[in-house]
Amino acid sequence: MSLAARYGDPSAAVAVANEVLAVQLAHRSVRRFGPRDVTADELTALVAAAQSAPSSSNLQPWSVVAVRDPGRRKRLSVLAGDQAFIAQAPLFLVWVADLGRARRLAHRAGTPLDAADYLETTLVGFIDTALAAQNAVVAARSLGLGTVFVGAIRNRLEEVAAELGLPAHAVAAFGLAVGEPDPSEEAGIKPRLPQSAVLHHERYDADAADAHIEVYDERLTDYNSRFGLPGAWSDRVLARLRGPESLSGRHVLRATLERLGLPSR
Amino acid sequence: MSLAARYGDPSAAVAVANEVLAVQLAHRSVRRFGPRDVTADELTALVAAAQSAPSSSNLQPWSVVAVRDPGRRKRLSVLAGDQAFIAQAPLFLVWVADLGRARRLAHRAGTPLDAADYLETTLVGFIDTALAAQNAVVAARSLGLGTVFVGAIRNRLEEVAAELGLPAHAVAAFGLAVGEPDPSEEAGIKPRLPQSAVLHHERYDADAADAHIEVYDERLTDYNSRFGLPGAWSDRVLARLRGPESLSGRHVLRATLERLGLPSR
Repeated sequence: MSLAARYGDPSAAVAVANEVLAVQLAHRSVRRFGPRDVTADELTALVAAAQSAPSSSNLQPWSVVAVRDPGRRKRLSVLAGDQAFIAQAPLFLVWVADLGRARRLAHRAGTPLDAADYLETTLVGFIDTALAAQNAVVAARSLGLGTVFVGAIRNRLEEVAAELGLPAHAVAAFGLAVGEPDPSEEAGIKPRLPQSAVLHHERYDADAADAHIEVYDERLTDYNSRFGLPGAWSDRVLARLRGPESLSGRHVLRATLERLGLPSR
Repeated sequence: MSLAARYGDPSAAVAVANEVLAVQLAHRSVRRFGPRDVTADELTALVAAAQSAPSSSNLQPWSVVAVRDPGRRKRLSVLAGDQAFIAQAPLFLVWVADLGRARRLAHRAGTPLDAADYLETTLVGFIDTALAAQNAVVAARSLGLGTVFVGAIRNRLEEVAAELGLPAHAVAAFGLAVGEPDPSEEAGIKPRLPQSAVLHHERYDADAADAHIEVYDERLTDYNSRFGLPGAWSDRVLARLRGPESLSGRHVLRATLERLGLPSR
């Protein structure tokens, strides 16, 4: 099947194909939604797909809060960088890295849970939440629904926790807006780095990988110019990671996680 | 479609169905592999699927090292908790949270990249790596391949980095063994927590969610007894997180990440 859109390279292709790959390869972020609701059955399917993702030692250290209430979506959109599409999407899923369930189990059993104090466990919470949420993203697309992740939900985590009534040891990892794609949105499949820039055989070869960045910068500049966006990929990466001020408040994440009960000892 | 196996609940079902959901819901971990190789085209498809997952600000902060060499797989299996299936699988993918590419860009451009010092950025590295890898897991299954994640690759990260020649700011997040499932392996679809335990509407309700744990403990005890495994889910969670000694060496992860160039300021 063709990989031309995925890589912005007319010659890119692979000699295997199926329906699942087709859905995955066609992924794009959707930020403008049509009026129809996401049904209860669709939500059940998304969560079942999410729970089918692997989980480290079957800990299942995540939860998800489904927000449909327009007022709550509006308030969350303000907390998450004033992104209007959160208020516009019929469903906003807040994926929660959740060590609270295990902490409550330990509290009831009167046993220690000291491993939960370590960065390793906090990281497993976020990793397993991500594995689950990505399954929901692909499931949504298979049902004709569009999605976009919202990392900006981490900008003001304590206010988000209050809005959603999150207990201790449960932290919003990211949001996911879900709804029917509005065909009037001008957006395409964003080309990614060439495979040779990210895939290594046996051992990592930085020089060989980085040699592909220049051609990618050209491809992404071409792509962005179609949507009136400036800048090559390299420039955008450098701007995004320049300093703490480019993190939209998330430079305090470590202390905030500690206060909310996901420490990183 | 039926959700009976996924939840260990004969009555669980949902009124939507398609090929993608079917592949996702049928997921199980595979730890015994048949002799056939994973082809170059299959690997290309897995990586293209992985690159099709969303990436925060399109940073693409990950790489993957494809290990086929039997000696290297054997050495990695020892480093990752002596898990023999790593040496037995034809392909072992090491997914790398990789801020090295951006750091090298900044070095060449002579610009600061101070946001990369913060836990937020390290976390984005791991989250985006997980989103990508989960797409590869589902793509693999769609191609008739089985997989299992290996978190134990984090037990001895510096030795893993040396084995794979990882540059600074690039850290193995987890491994993924890939191959044709050996039908002689006795394994099933592991039931997950009931949806009501993980899905909240509008606001998190801990009491309502935790009320479902008892029935899940019974279901998982039933499931495990089929494979001669002891223990209810709650007991296994409490044992896994009891203290730093239950983290297989990963209680030092924060300091190790700092040394390898993924700090968590």
